[in-house]
Amino acid sequence: MDVVFLGTGAGLPSKERNVSSIALRMLQEIQSIWLFDCGEATQHQILHTTIKPRKIDKIFITHLHGDHIYGLPGMLSSRSFQSGETPVTIFGPKGLKEFIETSLQVSGTTLTYPLFVEEVSEGLLFENELFEVTAKKLSHGIKSFGYRITEKARPGELQPEKLKAAGILPGPIYQQIKEKEQVTLADGRTISRSDYTGPDKPGRVITILGDTRYLPDLKDFAQGSDLLIHEATFKAEDEALAFDYFHSTSRQAARIAKAAAVNKLVLTHISSRYQGEIQEQLLAEAQEIFPNTALAQDFHQEEIPQK
Amino acid sequence: MDVVFLGTGAGLPSKERNVSSIALRMLQEIQSIWLFDCGEATQHQILHTTIKPRKIDKIFITHLHGDHIYGLPGMLSSRSFQSGETPVTIFGPKGLKEFIETSLQVSGTTLTYPLFVEEVSEGLLFENELFEVTAKKLSHGIKSFGYRITEKARPGELQPEKLKAAGILPGPIYQQIKEKEQVTLADGRTISRSDYTGPDKPGRVITILGDTRYLPDLKDFAQGSDLLIHEATFKAEDEALAFDYFHSTSRQAARIAKAAAVNKLVLTHISSRYQGEIQEQLLAEAQEIFPNTALAQDFHQEEIPQK
Repeated sequence: MDVVFLGTGAGLPSKERNVSSIALRMLQEIQSIWLFDCGEATQHQILHTTIKPRKIDKIFITHLHGDHIYGLPGMLSSRSFQSGETPVTIFGPKGLKEFIETSLQVSGTTLTYPLFVEEVSEGLLFENELFEVTAKKLSHGIKSFGYRITEKARPGELQPEKLKAAGILPGPIYQQIKEKEQVTLADGRTISRSDYTGPDKPGRVITILGDTRYLPDLKDFAQGSDLLIHEATFKAEDEALAFDYFHSTSRQAARIAKAAAVNKLVLTHISSRYQGEIQEQLLAEAQEIFPNTALAQDFHQEEIPQK
Repeated sequence: MDVVFLGTGAGLPSKERNVSSIALRMLQEIQSIWLFDCGEATQHQILHTTIKPRKIDKIFITHLHGDHIYGLPGMLSSRSFQSGETPVTIFGPKGLKEFIETSLQVSGTTLTYPLFVEEVSEGLLFENELFEVTAKKLSHGIKSFGYRITEKARPGELQPEKLKAAGILPGPIYQQIKEKEQVTLADGRTISRSDYTGPDKPGRVITILGDTRYLPDLKDFAQGSDLLIHEATFKAEDEALAFDYFHSTSRQAARIAKAAAVNKLVLTHISSRYQGEIQEQLLAEAQEIFPNTALAQDFHQEEIPQK
């Protein structure tokens, strides 16, 4: 499970940073990739990675500004060209469906796979056996959301001593006990896995936020995340600009990371006004408050190890 | 006056070729740049050229397939971000206005300049003092147009002998005669420039076609062009595929160039199935029929010298 930053710039593309998109790769966990935002030329960025568009089955849009959505029609069409057949669900604010439908219809595009567009509101958005995703409204000029992806806890390790003490000897039966909540033994006894395993292993949590002003409430939403991805469009000294344009500074992002006691913070959505070494300052400002911070570049990769 | 190929691939972007866009630079002539098609990431391609988006004041869309229009919303927005203030007119088939308006509206984008979208039909599309543009329907799965850009003839050189013979001696008056159709001399005589100049200098003609099947009619539309840009999605041997997908082969493009007696042919919209040396074969096939042919690569530049 890792995150690849496909576009880390703000507003418009530059030679150094494309507009916003982040891929969450969960190939081992669920054989799929989720995309967060899809700015123009996200499909072009993907050409420089090992990501296969047909593996992308969910796309979460934080908000509808062009630098976060204008790559969607092309991405969806190309996935079709490349014989993607499995369904895609796109989550995002109201208006997204109209944009996608109009783009595909006007261009005479017929997709080879089913496409669902779901309107987002706060709270639980989606849940499967292994993950759940919740959404929270941020503070931006238009409706903008943050997404918290929570991996469910996994059963703890089997404890062979306990099994042996109960007269259950090693063999293929151990595999069955590991995989099922309840197993009926050869002697007729039905046993519960939870009686023979250690404590549940907690799942990982990734919080990916869209564009937002400094929002202290995010402390709770991001609480305990293994990875927090927070925009840092501006340097600390440009806090007034950040406020006016509904964005955050490096230092404000770090304050959220600290208050939420996350493991790691990655800053993204960096304004093109900061070139070269000034970007290091932006990072240093955040690290003063929250040391385990990185500044994303395009194609930056962030592993999220199991706990 | 030159042409820059910003995207020369077909259908979907590859690492080698972006999707369709061509810039016609007429900075000396009319201080402006016209764009022909605007596939996704055209604005990204422009970052690698000296083209300033605010200089682009007309965009001609050949047809509405995604690989020819999905870069429009981003291009228009970025032109706004970069404080473009002069109007932009976009010409294209019906449906284009809806795509642009929906994209800008859903993303909450307000442009800093007036935008006009004009629906194209066959015939004269646009005319100013120096140029006229006519459109012709091609043969594609959806409505697709070719555009013929004709520079108007310029008055010939002043002929000093004739002027002297008429008693008009060299001086600032020669400049006036050169610039105006009629001039009144100090002695009261009114003279016509055309009586004292050589033959008109013919203007240049560039014909840029959208996606099309082989269409013999194009002989007349492209007649005498200094430059003909014709799609060559397929190799000659794949003529059946070309027909099925409403495209042309290299050889078909060359046949049009020859029949229309153009000066130069440039092939573009090359399928990504042809990589490396096979592209040379595609070019050679065309050159057998029409020797003055080039195969466009992204950023290929083609000067159109004055006659």
